[in-house]
Parts: sequence; structure tokens; C-alpha cells
Amino acid sequence: MVFNWRRLVFGKPFPTQHAHHTRLPNSLALPIFASDALSSVSYATEEILLVLATVAVSHQVLQVSWPIALAIALLLGIVATSYRQTIHAYPQGGGAYRVSRENLGLGAGLVAAASLLIDYVLTVAVSISAGVAAITSAAPYLQRYTVWLAVAFILFIAVANLRGAKESGLLFAIPTYLFIATITTMIVVGIVRMALGHQLTPPQPPEGSWARGAETLTFFLVLRAFSSGCTALTGIEAVTDGVPAFRPPEAKNAARVLAILGVILISMFVGITYLAHQLHVIPFPADMEGPHAHRQTVVSQIAYAVFGGGWFYFVIQGATAMILILAANTAYVDFPRLSMFLAEDRLLPRQFANVGDRLVFSNGIIGVTILSILTVVAFGASAHHLIPLYALGVFLSFTLSQSGMVVRWLRLRPHGWQLNAGINALGAAATFVVLIIIAVTKFMAGDPIQFFPLTTSLGLWLVGTAMGFVLISMYHRWMGKWFLGLAIAGFLAAWPLLHFQPLAMVEVHLGAWLVMVAIPTVVWMCFRVNAHYKAVADHLTMDRYVGVPDFKHTVLLVVSGLHRGIMPAVKYARSMGDDVRAVYVEIDPPKTATLLDRWHHWVPDVPLVVLESPYRSLVEPLLAYIDDVEKERDDDIITVVIPEFVTEKWWTKLLHGQNGLLLQWALRYRRGVVVTNIRYYLDSPGQQAAFQHPLTSHLE
Amino acid sequence: MVFNWRRLVFGKPFPTQHAHHTRLPNSLALPIFASDALSSVSYATEEILLVLATVAVSHQVLQVSWPIALAIALLLGIVATSYRQTIHAYPQGGGAYRVSRENLGLGAGLVAAASLLIDYVLTVAVSISAGVAAITSAAPYLQRYTVWLAVAFILFIAVANLRGAKESGLLFAIPTYLFIATITTMIVVGIVRMALGHQLTPPQPPEGSWARGAETLTFFLVLRAFSSGCTALTGIEAVTDGVPAFRPPEAKNAARVLAILGVILISMFVGITYLAHQLHVIPFPADMEGPHAHRQTVVSQIAYAVFGGGWFYFVIQGATAMILILAANTAYVDFPRLSMFLAEDRLLPRQFANVGDRLVFSNGIIGVTILSILTVVAFGASAHHLIPLYALGVFLSFTLSQSGMVVRWLRLRPHGWQLNAGINALGAAATFVVLIIIAVTKFMAGDPIQFFPLTTSLGLWLVGTAMGFVLISMYHRWMGKWFLGLAIAGFLAAWPLLHFQPLAMVEVHLGAWLVMVAIPTVVWMCFRVNAHYKAVADHLTMDRYVGVPDFKHTVLLVVSGLHRGIMPAVKYARSMGDDVRAVYVEIDPPKTATLLDRWHHWVPDVPLVVLESPYRSLVEPLLAYIDDVEKERDDDIITVVIPEFVTEKWWTKLLHGQNGLLLQWALRYRRGVVVTNIRYYLDSPGQQAAFQHPLTSHLE
Repeated sequence: MVFNWRRLVFGKPFPTQHAHHTRLPNSLALPIFASDALSSVSYATEEILLVLATVAVSHQVLQVSWPIALAIALLLGIVATSYRQTIHAYPQGGGAYRVSRENLGLGAGLVAAASLLIDYVLTVAVSISAGVAAITSAAPYLQRYTVWLAVAFILFIAVANLRGAKESGLLFAIPTYLFIATITTMIVVGIVRMALGHQLTPPQPPEGSWARGAETLTFFLVLRAFSSGCTALTGIEAVTDGVPAFRPPEAKNAARVLAILGVILISMFVGITYLAHQLHVIPFPADMEGPHAHRQTVVSQIAYAVFGGGWFYFVIQGATAMILILAANTAYVDFPRLSMFLAEDRLLPRQFANVGDRLVFSNGIIGVTILSILTVVAFGASAHHLIPLYALGVFLSFTLSQSGMVVRWLRLRPHGWQLNAGINALGAAATFVVLIIIAVTKFMAGDPIQFFPLTTSLGLWLVGTAMGFVLISMYHRWMGKWFLGLAIAGFLAAWPLLHFQPLAMVEVHLGAWLVMVAIPTVVWMCFRVNAHYKAVADHLTMDRYVGVPDFKHTVLLVVSGLHRGIMPAVKYARSMGDDVRAVYVEIDPPKTATLLDRWHHWVPDVPLVVLESPYRSLVEPLLAYIDDVEKERDDDIITVVIPEFVTEKWWTKLLHGQNGLLLQWALRYRRGVVVTNIRYYLDSPGQQAAFQHPLTSHLE
Repeated sequence: MVFNWRRLVFGKPFPTQHAHHTRLPNSLALPIFASDALSSVSYATEEILLVLATVAVSHQVLQVSWPIALAIALLLGIVATSYRQTIHAYPQGGGAYRVSRENLGLGAGLVAAASLLIDYVLTVAVSISAGVAAITSAAPYLQRYTVWLAVAFILFIAVANLRGAKESGLLFAIPTYLFIATITTMIVVGIVRMALGHQLTPPQPPEGSWARGAETLTFFLVLRAFSSGCTALTGIEAVTDGVPAFRPPEAKNAARVLAILGVILISMFVGITYLAHQLHVIPFPADMEGPHAHRQTVVSQIAYAVFGGGWFYFVIQGATAMILILAANTAYVDFPRLSMFLAEDRLLPRQFANVGDRLVFSNGIIGVTILSILTVVAFGASAHHLIPLYALGVFLSFTLSQSGMVVRWLRLRPHGWQLNAGINALGAAATFVVLIIIAVTKFMAGDPIQFFPLTTSLGLWLVGTAMGFVLISMYHRWMGKWFLGLAIAGFLAAWPLLHFQPLAMVEVHLGAWLVMVAIPTVVWMCFRVNAHYKAVADHLTMDRYVGVPDFKHTVLLVVSGLHRGIMPAVKYARSMGDDVRAVYVEIDPPKTATLLDRWHHWVPDVPLVVLESPYRSLVEPLLAYIDDVEKERDDDIITVVIPEFVTEKWWTKLLHGQNGLLLQWALRYRRGVVVTNIRYYLDSPGQQAAFQHPLTSHLE
């Protein structure tokens, strides 16, 4: 059953020998590595406008978006140029983890790796959420299913990736090119129509959506808008990771693709922001509620204005949704690969390095799926609420990676290293400045969540514990008064805490601080994992091994009576050593005498030990007896042989006690005891004959 | 943890030697055996009136309740007298199962047993539901928690019984006497006040609750009212089961208690019906709904009329609730005991004969708890809706038990047997007639439930299957067209079924037919269980046993590499036989050569078998190899030794694959293979030293 189901969903397993690197032509490499970076232009402009709109919705204020966009475009150019150097320096693939670790040390490498892992999860969550928003802009009746749609898309991408990356490459090329083509068309048509003097009116949010003059335009707010827009840079580093996937000359092809990607990215982002600016687009508030609240994205507003809601509008919305949902695919390629690197370096559980049925790193894929679904559900699939958490990790890894390159140039000093180091130093400096801006402006920019303050939590905990003591005092009469005393003390201690500060809540805003906490946590976990693997390796090394001492077998055969089913187990036990004892736990004392008689008649050479069990427990007397046997000799190993019935039909299992399983469970953590199950099949006579096995009682 | 929790709720375990029969004085035996029988008077009258009220609410029609009550009182007298004979004939306890089985055969015995088991479950459900109704009559704001209250009370009784019967006896005596006293007081005060000419006005249901003249008073309806009232007889047989619990002379004391019980029962039932009749009580409809629908029971109406809602009214309601809830206790004593009898006769799973920690039949108690909670939840804790199912089983067991007695008299023919046989024959005849009346009048008297008709079900199944085929056709391209064809055929076949008869529902009324189906089902299950136990016993008998043939050990040691952790397992495996082979599944081929070198160096005397695994599966190549090994020789037993890591902390488990467990699971149903786990502890060095076990690699 399970196997058939797996085949159906994931396809037939691939043999190991089929593993080979599919070299990608540039035309396929571009969409595969670019979808993440390109997709972010669909929401970057909107995020800038959403910050500015809180100030006051006047077109003058929104004009500020234009210089901000130009600054981001400049940053994009610097980062792309800087990364081209990394490609040439690391033709075997120069992810931030590798570059940082090699040049700055394990700690820096792990910080970069942790930032990237967190960021891949956020990439999935943000892209999927924005993609669903593009769909619900065009089809508002789907708005109530937002979270469900997001989860469904994540699962779809997960299945596609578990089936293998080869197929995904082809599957994801078309939407990327469609997105580039449609957005470019929109920008060109928009500019042409404006030049021709057409009146283009974008849909605007309902009156009163934005409180006028609520805040003033401060420099801080401009920086915040800038850092929101910096999400446009996310995903640009993907090409550097994947250099070996290009056709030779790999580095040259990869650098060319990165250059093309940079140009497309800058043009599209600047184009969209220019149109928004010229068309006086006012964004819809992120949290529109109410029965008729039909929220539109900024791209949707522009497309509507340019094409007037015709069929091309729906094509743009569809292409946007597709590239956003498929942009998550980049994270689905990167997260498992980075986890694999970390697992091979014994910094993450080794299971992440296992190759699955279809030659993909299934555990990494499953990991990113679970984490991103949790994120999407927690944030209600709202891209806007995820953005404050998003870009920090990217820029931290940018900074580390570029700094690593600078250190590398200073170390190797090849011909013309000064220029190269200068470019990377500029990249590092620029991304570091942005990192600081993001950290400061987005620190608590997100949704508020509510906690009990510490005092209230302590009070509630005291009340709960005191109620537990009351319960205990009701049952344990002789020491009840002590527990009652403790309970009263607990209630008294809780009183001031809960009385003087009633159930108030403390409000904490989500934001970049969450990522700042998460990154060191992940780094710490990786160090712990590494320490464990090192300890195990040290423990298991053969270096100082001199041998296992000799031992004798003591075999305990647990019996519940004497019948044909246990005779093979008796024979098996006897074959293992000389000290074999049958052990019988006496639940019903009157039956013991008969059993002893029969035992001596049928099995005269194995002694039967009868264990009293005053409380009718099977396990406890047996454990006590094992203790006694262990004290008898030092050089023996106790093997507990448990004969087990196997019945033919499922329901007949219920007619026999599951004592074998119970015993196995109880002995599971019992040191120095080896457990052996001897199964005995209760077949119908026909089947019994068909299966001739030595461990079967022979009949006359 | 688990043990402490058990101790807290269920108390300390009792040793077996404490098992002794607590002999009950008559004053304690009466409440213990009577609560079930007595409690039914609190709803029997109401059930009669509810049937009559559907005809037309005129006091003339409700007068019919009076002759019906007298007929039931007569029946009660006959049955009680008849059962007194059973007590004398079976001083060791004469339950319907034993009497029927002994005199009428196993089939009749099983029918009686099945009826009783079903009836015990219904007793719990009906009593608890009626008890909760008594509470909500007095405290209407609790009405919305009806089902929760009922479940909570069932769990309370279950815990009390799991703690042991001795305590329950004392706990349940007080409410019974309180109930007898208060109801008697109510009847006496009521009659006296009416004689004094006081004006007593019971609360009546709101106007329009009953449609006037909806049905006419037919003979069938009178019979239905009569059979509803017959619930007053339920529980009267309890004394005959428990004769050995009385003080000597047991039979005499038991007969005396039964006589007293009969008298009390008849007086209370007749008294309540008389008052209802004199006070012109109109019952509240069973299904009152709406925000202010405060339903009262008939006893509540009478008590209110007699005492005018003073404190004594609340005492009566409280006592009624208590006795009803505790009446369920009778079933909690009887169900486990009858299950134990059946289990000892190998007609039910043997676990029902196990004595628990506190010397009670825990599994029977758990069984009746689960079944009665399911019933209460399914019927919304409405006693009225359960009544149609209720009395049938009781009267079937009455009839069988009395008929068994008649057969016994005819067989043994002691002095004066004619009179005795006559009494029992009268009892059997009377209860048989009532049985038929109940079966006919209550056959479909209950709530309607809705089903899809067969055609619709078939159509829906076809659609579901066809959709499955569509899914399959999407993935398996080369045979997709076949699956698509099947899918289309499925849709076409479903079309007429669903088109010409859209999703209509068929309505079926619950009622006594459910019990008529359930009884033979239970009987059939008991026969199946019995057949299985007989087959096993036949299989396991030593009668024709001649011995187990000699065999050789083939030991397969599964290794994932060479390290100190597996060396004890190597030694253990080698100690078991000469044919020991280490088996290595090659997941990562490049590593194999090194492993082979190291293996030959460290373990030169055990060959290492390398199994290819093109699909990187661990289990499948191993199973295939076991197949091969089995074909090599006929006289060997394969023991698979699996070395297993045990790590110190829970989280470190996650850092190692669970291949050992996986393998054990895969081999679980593999015939003729013995699985042995050798655990290796990955301790910190300090702990390692503290635990000196032979199965540990020694170090220099």
C-alpha cells in the first residue's frame, strides 16, 4: 500500500548510477536561477509605497519613491558586479557559506549558513504569499482561502521537487520568460500610452483607507521605505551557488547570466516604480478587512490602468502569480543543498545528506516544506507582514560573502588584486550599510503579538501547581495535610501577583529582531550537533581498541505455560549456551503445581524458575529476577528469549495478550540484556504444511 | 510518571492474597443490588404518559395509565416470585447465562448473555441520562451541558469501580436509602394533602406542546405504553446473580432481600403513577427545544406540586439524580463479571478474565465505559430516546432464564416440583408475552436516522473510484489511457444512478430492531472467538508432539561500517555458531573498498558480504539476500543480529538514522528469521566506567 502510494505521487525510484549533473544551457539556467530574484520586483515597489503611504497620502510624498528606487537600482548594480567576481573565484560554486567559512572561519560560515537557511524558508513564505495575493487581486472571491491556497502551492512545489530536479527545470522556465515578457510589455505600453497623452487611471483604495497626515515624513521613514524596497535584491546570489550546473566554460557562462539578470532586474524594478510614480498609484492598505474589501497589489493597479482590465491584465496577474509561486522553487533547490553541505560537515543531522528515491535530498525538501508551511500559517499568508523579517538574513550573508572575498584577495594577491578587492570591498560596505539600516528600521516593524508579563505567568503557574497539590492531598490521606499546606502557600504567593496586576497582556512587535534571535540559535544548534558527532566519532574510533572480553551466555526463556508453541524457543535457547533457564511469572498460583509437573516431564533438562507476582504484574518480577541473575556472575551476558505468537488474522491478535510486546518495551532500556524474539505461527494446517521451517514443532 | 498517575487516580495495587469475598449484610446488599431496579421507577411512569400524551392531552386518556400501571405491578410480582425460585435453585449465583446454558444449551446461554451485555450498556446510558435529566429539571441552566455531564458521571463511576468494589458498596448505600425515604415521603405527603383537600397544582408544559387529537387511542398504543412502562422491571434479576455475596444462609437472605425489593418497587411505582393520575400531570414533550425550554420530569412535576418547590423538592431531585447515576453501578458490577464468565469459557477475549491492580476485572469495566459513553453521545443523553432499545434484552433474558428453570424442574423433579415449575412457567409465559409486545410495539419507535439508498451509494462510490483513476492516469503516462478509459467508464456508469435519483436520503427509525440485530451479532462473535481459541488449543496441545528437529545457526550481522560499537555484536554473533556473516548494504559505492580493507584487518575471521543497492534502499537488498541464504541449506535458522546505538540524550537520537528500527519492522513478519538487537551505549566516559558490562569494547 505505502509503496504504491509513494510511486504514484513521487514516481519510480532512480538508480544511483543515473546521478549525473545535468548541465544547463544559459537559456534554461537564467529562469532556474532567476525566478527568485525577478519575482521580488512584483512586490518591492509596493513595499516602498506602503511605508510612505502611512505618512500622508499626497502625491508629493509618494514621489520620494522614485529616488529610493534609483538608490536600490544602484545597490543592485554594485552587488551584481561584486558577485561576478565570486563566480570567477569559485567556479566550483561559491555560496556564502563556503566563501565565508574558507576566508573568515567556521563561525562566520555558520552565521552565513544560518542566515541563508532562515532566508530560504522566508523566501518560500513570502513568494507564495505574494503569488496568492496576485491571484486574489484578480479573483477576489478566493480571498477567504488565502492560507489554504498558500499551503496547497507549497505542497505542490514540494512534490515536484521530491520527484526530482530535472523535471522542475523545464517546468519552471516558461513562467519566468512569460513574466519577463508581460511585465516588459506592460512597462513599454504604459510609457507609450502616457507619451501619447492617454488618460490612465489606476484603481485606488476606498476613501479613508489612509488617515491623512498621521505621521510626518522623517528621514527614518525614508530609510524604512528604502529597506523595504531592498527585498528586490533577494535571490540575486543564487547564480554563484550554481556555477557547476552551467555548460563549460562554466564561470564565463554564469557571469554572463548574472549580468543579464542584473540588467533585467534593474530595468523591471525601475520601470514599475516609474509607472507607479507617474500614474500616482496609491497602494491598498495591507490589512483591508470587511465583506467587500477587495485588495489589489500595486502591479495589479498598474496593469489595470495600462490595459483597462482586458485579457492581458489577467495574463499579467497569472504570470506574476506563477513566477512568485515558482520562485519558491529556488529555495527548494538551495535549502536542501545547503543542508547537505552542512550535514556532510557534520553540522546538521546526517539525514540531510541522504539521497532519496529520486536522487534528491528528500529530507531537506521536507524540512523547508514544514518550516515554510508553519511560517505561512503563522503570518496568515501575508507577504507584507513577512517582509520585515525577510531581507536581514540576505544582507547578512551578502556582507559576509563579500568580506570573505576581500580577505581572499588580500591573502592570495593575484595580478590586479587591488581592483578586485576594491569592487568586493565596495559591495561589502554597501550591503553592510543596508544591513544596519534594515536592522534598525525593521527591528520591531511587524505585527504585534501579546504575552502575559512575567509576573502574571508566575502567578498562573503557582495557581496551577497549588491546584495540583489540592488534588494530591485528596488521595494521599496520611500526608494530605502537607500537600494542603503547600497548596495554601501556593495560593497565597500567587495572590499579590495576580491581584495587583490582573491578567494584563504585554505587546511585542514582530520584526527583524526575530531573525536576530533565530540566527545565533541555529548557529548554536549546529555547534551542538557538531560536538555530538565529534564525541561519537571519538567514542567509536578503533584507535585504542584492544578487544571484547570473553563471556558466557545466560539465557532466560520467558514462558507463560507449556505448549507446542514454545518448544522451538526452548531448543533455540538451549543451542545458545549451557545456562538456560525457563522463567515463569506466577499470576495465578493454583496453576503452578501442574505446570511444574508437566515441565519436568517434557523439558527435563531446562530448569523452570517460578517467580511470585503478588500484584499480578508480569514485568516487575522479571526485572527483579534479571537483577539477581546479573549479580550471580560477572562474565555473563543475559539473553532474554521471548516466544511470540503470530496469528493468521488481524482480529485474532486481540484475543491474545500482548505480553511479548510489553516485555520487549520494558527491556528496551535495560542495559546489558539482549532480547530475542522467537515467533511461532498459528496457521491453519494447510499453510503450516506449505511452510517448512526448522523452528516448527514436528508432529507424529 | 505513568505509575504515579495511576496510583493517584486508582490507588495502590492490592496483592492477590487480599482477594476474599466480602459478605454483605442484608442492609448493605439491598442498596447494592436494588439501585438499578429502584431507579427505574423514576422514569417508568413518565414513559407511559409520554406514549399516551401523543394521542390527545385530555385527562380521560391519561387515565389509562392507571390500569397499565396495575398490570405492570402484577407482572413485577410474578417475576419477583419466579426469581425467588432461581435463588433457591442456584445458591452459587444463578444469572440468566448460567441458568440458560445449563438447562437450554450453549446457544440459549449465549443469547441470554448477549442480551444482558447489551442491556448493561443500555442500563448505564439510560440511568445516567435520566439522572442528568433530574439535575437539569432543577437546574435548567445546566441543560446545554447534558451530554458532557453524562460522560463525566460515567467516567466518575468507572474510576470508582476501577479503584475496587469494596469502597463502592459503602458509597452507594446512602443515596439508595435516601431515594426510598424521600419518594415514600412524597407519596405519603401527597396522598395525605389530597385527602385533606389541599389544592396541588403541578407545573404543566407550555400551551401547544402537544397537538390535540393527533392520534386516536388504539389498542396498539396502549400496548406501547405498557411496554414503555415495563422498564420498571429492569434490574430486578440482579439479586439472583449475587447470591454468594450474601451472608449465610445465602439463599434465604437473598430471597428475603428480593421480596423486600419487590414490595418497595411495586409500592413506589404504583404510588407515583397514582399521584400522576390524581394530579392530572401532563408530561413535558421529550424533545423540548428553544431558549426557554425548561423540561421537567414527571417526578419533578409531582414533587413540585406536593412540596411547592421548597427545599424538600431539591432533596428529591438530588436523591433521584444520585440513585440514577449510581444505578449504573449495578451494570458496572454485572458487565465485568459476566464478561469474565464468558472469557473463562473462552467465548470472549481472555483479557476480560484478567484481574487488575485493585482485584477488579479492569478490562470489563473499561469495556462497559467505552460502550456506554458511545451510546450516550450517539443518543444525546436522552433517556426517552434510549427506552425503545432498552427493555427488549431484559425480557429476553427473563424468558430464557425462567424457561431454563422450567426445564430444570422437569429434569430433576424434586419434591413438590409441579408447583415450582408452574410458578416459573407463569413467569416465563408472562415475560415472553411482554417480550413479544415490546418487540412489536417498539420495533421502530425511536429516532429517525438517514441513509443514502443503495443506488446513490453505488453511484458515489463509482465517482470516487473514477476520480482516483484520473489521478493515476496523470502520473503513469504510458498506461494513462487505460486508466483514463476506466475513469470515463466509471463516470458513465455513475451517471444514471445519480441523475435519476439525486442525493435522496432514506429514513430509518431506530428501535428494538437494533437490539434484535445486535444480539445475534454478539452471539456470532462469541462463537467465532470460541472457534479460534479451540483451534489454538488444538494447535498447541502436546498430544502429538515428537520434538523439534536439529538445526544449525546462520548468523547475519548487519553492519553500517566498522567501528568500536559493533565489535561486541561481532563477538556475540560469533558465539552463536560457526556460519557468521557480516552483511553490508552498499549505499555509497566509493566507500566500499576502504571498508573491506579495514574489515579484513580488524575482523579477519568473519566474512563481509557486500550487497549492492542501486536504489539506495537498506531493507530490500537485505530481504533478497535472506532469501538466497534460506535456499542454501534446509537445516539452518537465520538469526539477524542488529547492532543498535543508544544515545544518552533524547535529541541526539534524531542525529542518527533509525535504520535498526526500520529493519526490525521489515523483518517482523518475515518467517523463519530470528531478530536479535545488540545495543551499544554512547555514554559520556564517566558513565561508561560506572557501568561495566561484558558487551563493551575494552580500551587500552
